[in-house]
Amino acid sequence: MTGLDGRRVYLDWNATAPLRPEARAAMLEAMDAVGNPSSVHTEGRAARAIVERARAQLADLLWRAPSEIVFTSGATEGAAAVIRSGWPRVMCAETEHDCIYEPARRTDTYTALSVDADGLVDVEGLEAGGVDDGDLICVQSANSETGVEQRVAAVGMLRLDHGCAVLSDMTQSVGKIEGCDLEQPPGADFTLCSAHKLGGPKGVGATVIRAGADFEAEMPGGGQETGRRSGTENVVGIAGFGAAAEAAQRDLEDGVWDRVAALRNILEARLEAVAPDLIFVGREAERLPNTTCIALPGWKGETQVMQLDLAGFAVSAGSACSSGKVKESRVLRAMGFDAVTASSAIRVSLGPTTTEAEITAFAEAWTTLYRKRTSRAA
Amino acid sequence: MTGLDGRRVYLDWNATAPLRPEARAAMLEAMDAVGNPSSVHTEGRAARAIVERARAQLADLLWRAPSEIVFTSGATEGAAAVIRSGWPRVMCAETEHDCIYEPARRTDTYTALSVDADGLVDVEGLEAGGVDDGDLICVQSANSETGVEQRVAAVGMLRLDHGCAVLSDMTQSVGKIEGCDLEQPPGADFTLCSAHKLGGPKGVGATVIRAGADFEAEMPGGGQETGRRSGTENVVGIAGFGAAAEAAQRDLEDGVWDRVAALRNILEARLEAVAPDLIFVGREAERLPNTTCIALPGWKGETQVMQLDLAGFAVSAGSACSSGKVKESRVLRAMGFDAVTASSAIRVSLGPTTTEAEITAFAEAWTTLYRKRTSRAA
Repeated sequence: MTGLDGRRVYLDWNATAPLRPEARAAMLEAMDAVGNPSSVHTEGRAARAIVERARAQLADLLWRAPSEIVFTSGATEGAAAVIRSGWPRVMCAETEHDCIYEPARRTDTYTALSVDADGLVDVEGLEAGGVDDGDLICVQSANSETGVEQRVAAVGMLRLDHGCAVLSDMTQSVGKIEGCDLEQPPGADFTLCSAHKLGGPKGVGATVIRAGADFEAEMPGGGQETGRRSGTENVVGIAGFGAAAEAAQRDLEDGVWDRVAALRNILEARLEAVAPDLIFVGREAERLPNTTCIALPGWKGETQVMQLDLAGFAVSAGSACSSGKVKESRVLRAMGFDAVTASSAIRVSLGPTTTEAEITAFAEAWTTLYRKRTSRAA
Repeated sequence: MTGLDGRRVYLDWNATAPLRPEARAAMLEAMDAVGNPSSVHTEGRAARAIVERARAQLADLLWRAPSEIVFTSGATEGAAAVIRSGWPRVMCAETEHDCIYEPARRTDTYTALSVDADGLVDVEGLEAGGVDDGDLICVQSANSETGVEQRVAAVGMLRLDHGCAVLSDMTQSVGKIEGCDLEQPPGADFTLCSAHKLGGPKGVGATVIRAGADFEAEMPGGGQETGRRSGTENVVGIAGFGAAAEAAQRDLEDGVWDRVAALRNILEARLEAVAPDLIFVGREAERLPNTTCIALPGWKGETQVMQLDLAGFAVSAGSACSSGKVKESRVLRAMGFDAVTASSAIRVSLGPTTTEAEITAFAEAWTTLYRKRTSRAA
């Protein structure tokens, strides 16, 4: 048995989304642009126009001004640049993605934020503990492993009330949630996003910098991106990012994610009916429409991923962005789960083209594996 | 009149080279790889294989081990990472590219190196002045504006004799010069290269790190690239880089650059015959086969670039990698040229597909402009 009708089923959209046809077409077109966007001649100006068109497309999706967008090689680069700008304090929870958590904990001024059982940052406790002008608070908009949405708007209020700065990794929610609170006045100062999570190419991202906020360029040099990020622009990748952003905007307007959420809920109901002992992590919290994180203490996530892969399904255990390392989830540990439970979690993440037939096939494959395991244990 | 037979003529290959057909094909194929290279499932392993294939292709071109190659978003990123690793002293000449010079001069330990009239670093003077264990010496393999080749091997000897570290920006020479001294024992510890200079896509590069040399990761996070450069890999771009490297290797073996050098020499001879007052910068030094830098005091490089652009030819004044800014060349100033001469320079850079007809057309267009200018002045 492999997947659905002999085709593999990809349910790891939070790790990376397949390239959208619109992105592919835009990238192909951009390949014909011969020039360097910094060159003043005709070929250079044509390449520049491709970059600026993509900037406008992304700005539309984010409800922000094109001038606030700095293209990068991905959220990891943007996170390092902002976090290492010499803040008096860098605060984040252990539920943040490696791209935030790793540079943050390496600073001399790292301060850990606590989270509740759903992984939500205790905003009131944070405020009561004292937030100072100059602190950098890092808060993701949604967790990549559980899909749980943080209250970025509430953290954003701290920015207005206490003068701290807010960095929000919106990698997982951009394109899945309308506006992502980006349009709200109490939003973040710095917002990270990544093309490949919304159907653009891998290795391209953006840091959205609210007017008035700033940080020293991590990569000085030729002065591209208004001096905030030097280096010749990834023209082909940026073109794909812009086209993917436009397509993502259309999907949002078409209510595609409501359909995805319905499929995710069908999946959870099917699995629950089969395995009453299954834990649905963060199910009671506000979650991304496409993500379910399930844990069954004793059945290692790593094993499940391999068994499901052999059966034709791609899902993941923990975060994919860890060089093939599969380890117990730091996120689930921070939420209070024990090590056995945390290492038994898998994430199933859907996308705009996921079908009910795929979900049904996955539920059946998982059920077969689950029953085999249960009967062996009996 | 536009270019040659109504087609524009691109002679700005040092700013960026047109995408090679081999790179385009590899990129198209890589677009079909759905997975994240860090994912352990089938889709992830397929994406990983694309990255590793490209690493092997680039290693072949560079005469280095694949394990020494770290993919980046370009030379600028690699330069910042190496230069900011807390060296007791960072030494470079003002002839270095912005991607080296800007982060270097921002360090507290920047020490300027002097160059001669050809732009060559005074290696004997450097050694006589004292080189210490722990110093970082940055030396380009070839200058982007003049094509003049530095004596990287001689600087590399300092590494062996004095224990200093050497960073070499080989962006302009990789793919144009066999081996680039990379295979020589006294080569650099850290070598930078960029895909788009050799016919790969823009926004992808590599830092080649000699076994034993190391620096702290500038972008911590998921731990990709053996922990030296986190962030989901630019799979499509890297595939294009690998294919371009393989094609560049074939061009080297086929002697393509000898043909290019012959065309460059024809061009210089034609211009010299027309304008005896024309200065050929660095002509007596070892130069890249494809580059000529000409200066005519009083005729601004910026003006020439625009006039030639209108006539259908793309060339540049100074370095393109400066966000459309056209200013007097820092490189030429460091070589001892006065401001008027330095601001009158243009660079004409050829590539493997440049034809003699294109060179002839360019020489004619330039001659027409030159004669108009001379007759006006008379």
